[in-house]
Amino acid sequence: MIISPEMIGYIAATLTTASFLPQAILTIKTKDTESLSLSMYSLFTLGVFFWLIYGVYISDEAIIAANAITLVLAASILTFKIYNVLFKNG
Amino acid sequence: MIISPEMIGYIAATLTTASFLPQAILTIKTKDTESLSLSMYSLFTLGVFFWLIYGVYISDEAIIAANAITLVLAASILTFKIYNVLFKNG
Repeated sequence: MIISPEMIGYIAATLTTASFLPQAILTIKTKDTESLSLSMYSLFTLGVFFWLIYGVYISDEAIIAANAITLVLAASILTFKIYNVLFKNG
Repeated sequence: MIISPEMIGYIAATLTTASFLPQAILTIKTKDTESLSLSMYSLFTLGVFFWLIYGVYISDEAIIAANAITLVLAASILTFKIYNVLFKNG
């Protein structure tokens, strides 16, 4: 069996996105963000946004797909965190 | 000022690696991994490994650099976690 570069990219994308999913589901469900770091999630979300732009620039589908999904998840968590910091002290 | 695709890639790489650094430093310093998920870190570390292979395949320096650094950090955390699970019940 020959594994194409595209397949490697999609395996990588699936694994890193899947590893992020449980945290995203937990946060969206409970809305609890007290143990999450605002600065870490801000850097991460911005970084994923830049990876998405980079994927578009180099026309790489695996990078676009992985970072588009992760961006939605990370931005949701960050939104809950910012809301909680502003209105609920954490 | 014109921002090249390479620059976008390196901004993305710096941001996502930087967002991961505080957790790695904390874990290496304290060796405490109780609140970290074994399955999440296993998926993530494997995913970063595949991104690194993918970067080598498509000869992309930003992807190689970001994932090589993150792989060392993630694998260190995972090693502490597995050690603690095996010998210290967490």
